[in-house]
Amino acid sequence: MSAPVSSTPRARPLLSTMMDVPLTVQTILERIRTLYFDREVVSLMVAGRDEAGNPVPEAHRSTYGEVAERALRLANALTALGVQQGDRVATLAVNSYRHLECYLGIPSMGAVLHTVNIRLHPDQVAWILNHAEDRVLIVENLFAGLIPAIRAACPGLEAIIVMGPTPTPIDGVLDYDTFVAGHSSDFAYPDLDERQAAAMCYTSGTTGNPKGVLYSHRSTLLHSLAAAPKDALDVGERDTVMAIVPMFHVNAWGLPYTCALVGAKQVFCGMFSDGKNVARMLEQEQVTITAGVPTIWMGLLGELDRAQTAGTPYDLHRLNSLVVGGSAAPEAQIRAFQTRHGLKLNHAWGMTETHPLGTVSVLPVGVDLISDEGYALQAKQGRTVPLIELALLSDSDEQGGAGELLPHDGKTMGRLMARGPWVAASYYKGEGQSNFMTLGGKLWFDTGDIATIDARGYMHIQDRSKDLIKSGGEWISSVDLENALMAHPAVAQAAVIAVPDPKWDERPLGVLVLVAGASAPDHAELTAFLAPRFAKWWLPDAYEVVAAIPIGATGKFLKRELRDQFTAYQGAGTASRD
Amino acid sequence: MSAPVSSTPRARPLLSTMMDVPLTVQTILERIRTLYFDREVVSLMVAGRDEAGNPVPEAHRSTYGEVAERALRLANALTALGVQQGDRVATLAVNSYRHLECYLGIPSMGAVLHTVNIRLHPDQVAWILNHAEDRVLIVENLFAGLIPAIRAACPGLEAIIVMGPTPTPIDGVLDYDTFVAGHSSDFAYPDLDERQAAAMCYTSGTTGNPKGVLYSHRSTLLHSLAAAPKDALDVGERDTVMAIVPMFHVNAWGLPYTCALVGAKQVFCGMFSDGKNVARMLEQEQVTITAGVPTIWMGLLGELDRAQTAGTPYDLHRLNSLVVGGSAAPEAQIRAFQTRHGLKLNHAWGMTETHPLGTVSVLPVGVDLISDEGYALQAKQGRTVPLIELALLSDSDEQGGAGELLPHDGKTMGRLMARGPWVAASYYKGEGQSNFMTLGGKLWFDTGDIATIDARGYMHIQDRSKDLIKSGGEWISSVDLENALMAHPAVAQAAVIAVPDPKWDERPLGVLVLVAGASAPDHAELTAFLAPRFAKWWLPDAYEVVAAIPIGATGKFLKRELRDQFTAYQGAGTASRD
Repeated sequence: MSAPVSSTPRARPLLSTMMDVPLTVQTILERIRTLYFDREVVSLMVAGRDEAGNPVPEAHRSTYGEVAERALRLANALTALGVQQGDRVATLAVNSYRHLECYLGIPSMGAVLHTVNIRLHPDQVAWILNHAEDRVLIVENLFAGLIPAIRAACPGLEAIIVMGPTPTPIDGVLDYDTFVAGHSSDFAYPDLDERQAAAMCYTSGTTGNPKGVLYSHRSTLLHSLAAAPKDALDVGERDTVMAIVPMFHVNAWGLPYTCALVGAKQVFCGMFSDGKNVARMLEQEQVTITAGVPTIWMGLLGELDRAQTAGTPYDLHRLNSLVVGGSAAPEAQIRAFQTRHGLKLNHAWGMTETHPLGTVSVLPVGVDLISDEGYALQAKQGRTVPLIELALLSDSDEQGGAGELLPHDGKTMGRLMARGPWVAASYYKGEGQSNFMTLGGKLWFDTGDIATIDARGYMHIQDRSKDLIKSGGEWISSVDLENALMAHPAVAQAAVIAVPDPKWDERPLGVLVLVAGASAPDHAELTAFLAPRFAKWWLPDAYEVVAAIPIGATGKFLKRELRDQFTAYQGAGTASRD
Repeated sequence: MSAPVSSTPRARPLLSTMMDVPLTVQTILERIRTLYFDREVVSLMVAGRDEAGNPVPEAHRSTYGEVAERALRLANALTALGVQQGDRVATLAVNSYRHLECYLGIPSMGAVLHTVNIRLHPDQVAWILNHAEDRVLIVENLFAGLIPAIRAACPGLEAIIVMGPTPTPIDGVLDYDTFVAGHSSDFAYPDLDERQAAAMCYTSGTTGNPKGVLYSHRSTLLHSLAAAPKDALDVGERDTVMAIVPMFHVNAWGLPYTCALVGAKQVFCGMFSDGKNVARMLEQEQVTITAGVPTIWMGLLGELDRAQTAGTPYDLHRLNSLVVGGSAAPEAQIRAFQTRHGLKLNHAWGMTETHPLGTVSVLPVGVDLISDEGYALQAKQGRTVPLIELALLSDSDEQGGAGELLPHDGKTMGRLMARGPWVAASYYKGEGQSNFMTLGGKLWFDTGDIATIDARGYMHIQDRSKDLIKSGGEWISSVDLENALMAHPAVAQAAVIAVPDPKWDERPLGVLVLVAGASAPDHAELTAFLAPRFAKWWLPDAYEVVAAIPIGATGKFLKRELRDQFTAYQGAGTASRD
């Protein structure tokens, strides 16, 4: 018995006896059709215009049962139109029940839902439609004015379908509701390979052309499963979820799929994402979970403060979580929501290339939320959701050696690498291959972020690698400085950028937008304000006040434009290095 | 633009650009090693014997960090022994940290964890070890007495490893702790195909020989993801979970994997699953979720009642959920826990062939738990977890036609069919193929259960198909009658079985175990007790009182033995059919 087990090599590993059932979006559609048909889907739509020409909101109420039936009719209608498996069907639309029908119906027929960012310039929209080789475009009536230009620029587009009524008929386009109503809801699901493309999103393309990412049925289902548990987004049937993050932006962080899979009621704001409408919908629909970028929460915070001061606070007692992503929420904002309104901001981190959920800032056991440690951890991007791996890589130029793994000590900054079944392995048409690399025999995606990871796995984004300030061979995180500056009472917005420096290579410059009516703090005051939290050599050498910081289509600062503007900047002197 | 989209057939569907990352148990092991290393694993072990020879429990405290390290050492040790990918490594062990190490280490090296039921007769254990062609056996010291017999009966077994000290040395066996300590924790994970077998369980085999089911890495990961959310088992890092369901029984309902994936603390009772030890551990470790079969909860209820009456109730305020499965908990038991102790029993349903989680009895929105509707729904097996599909099929003999799909109306009984990525497609070595069938081009597993499904998807097991009583061409559910009979104050246990009847083919006979000291109710009294809830022709024609009902190795009634015993039964007269 003590002799080693014999080592005859096996021909192949033993396979399991389990069913080979593919993970597909069809499963999600069938769940809302058969189990959750009574749950509501509420959409704020444009009912008309007031005298000043501003759109007037009106809540449209539907159910998952109706959404499922119409999604199946849509699948039949697109099939009748000639759309086949793998064909790209584009949407240019706001968050609504109709967009949700597209989310479910288009992938379930094996076609690819391509959500296009409505905030892009029409030329960029046309470029993306052409690059994706979209055959059909489904466009919200709000953007119907773009149709002639798009049609002219995109000869490959074979059909255009408009969601909602248009003031004047447009020649040769189909009406979405009529199109859907004209076909049966008795749809025979095709057999799909779970690795088939289900949806497509383009990166924001702040450098170079936008690049396409094709999500699979598998990645969509796995992401939905991993996003639901309590240490991720904590979504269940009894929840009411309002995704303010647009459905054209990384599948609204996957929430439409996650919510449908578990039966949560969904609320959509459509084009009404200002503080007042958001607060009103949160209260009216008794929302439990909402999700958006920091600028949305800035608007909401202002409205909540206003209402509280006016003695008419909103009743948001059912609201458990405001998920914040897209860019980092400053700790001051997290504290303001908690202390003034008892509301919890939860950081999530991800990208178009990660489908997007990579990390969530759930606190570890034993750490109280309302404590300095708690707030500090909440201001980080958090820990990985299951199946996602992160690593830090040294910079081949600066830190010696090409791609060495760096320690997770909460201090060492490195290039953030991600890997997992819902992380991109390439871009559409094989572009941008330098963002993907093999380490230790495994493929990793270079996020372009610079981050730290602590011993408990908390990841903290320090900067975009292109925005990092490289001063005397060391790295300075612009994001940390910006968040600290925005806690100053006179500062509304802050961007810290690198400006060339003859001695240190680069030095930080603070570009500030002031709070209305505030006077500009001087350099000494800001230096004193930041000094307790940073090494002396991190502190900006100078500040410039501007009326506005340029913002891109996904709501992020366009630092490249700022750098171009200040490239020849000669400021108030170089800080000493000690 | 109004012409249909051209319909050139595509060569193949468009694949996504996402990474091809396999779902493997290695991911779970790496999560506890890198993120949750501080979380505790508490195991009740045998510290010695008292003067009466009864085992004395003692809590062993470990952490996920230690478990992960030892799991990796185990993988290296087994590799050094010659174990290769696909080799079966059997365990014959109670729930403990060592068994958890096997759960993680054995699949992570590509070998197959084969958990053997410790309650089987030694001849059955040997039969299963031989059938599975296990090469290594890891056995708890409690069962070391079986080693000579197993060794004699299983010549294919090349190594035996004993967990824990033995009173006298056994020649030629390895000590688990020494074996593990002798190897490095620096283990190079092999690349695995997610469809490879990770674990193996045998069905209880109440009919015919036991049959093996091989779980895959994929099914284990998907099951873990689907089991975590709030409408399933609701497990997160802040939870403390005590799986009383044995780790040799369908992977303890997957809880060791689910808990490790999300970082929940785990508590194991080992061999101490009596009411007193269970209650003490629930209190001492502040358990939030526990899981077991109804007989465990019967024991716990008795202890909680006793302690309450004695004025020394247990403090179980953190206990959110007692998951009940294996067989149905009577509504009376669910009500007793809720009304007397404020504790919630949650039904889950599954089988060895379903890995096991198929349904959970989470209430729909708008239904209050503490209401007649709430209790009635809680007594059902619940709704499917995501990715599992259920269907009802007519019986080819009785209901005309072979395999017609039956309506989900909450009334129509049918053969319960299941399908999903963690449902078996066959048994090991291709046995029992009649349990798998193709319907509408898809493979389904015939559970052998008879059930109803209502319009909201709530599934309710009516009977095992072999235990169903077929009376005059109609079906009578033994389970419903048993649950109703067990609500009678004089009845401790009830089994209702079919006995042959010349006129009706079969008629129900009630076999009762009385509450200690109670006198047997007569036929008229029991008939009057059941009459309000059942059609007259369902009511048993007669009752027999027995000292005990035979119980199988998985804790279920062995009705086949009862039927054999009462096969020639001629009772007190045949009930009229109207």
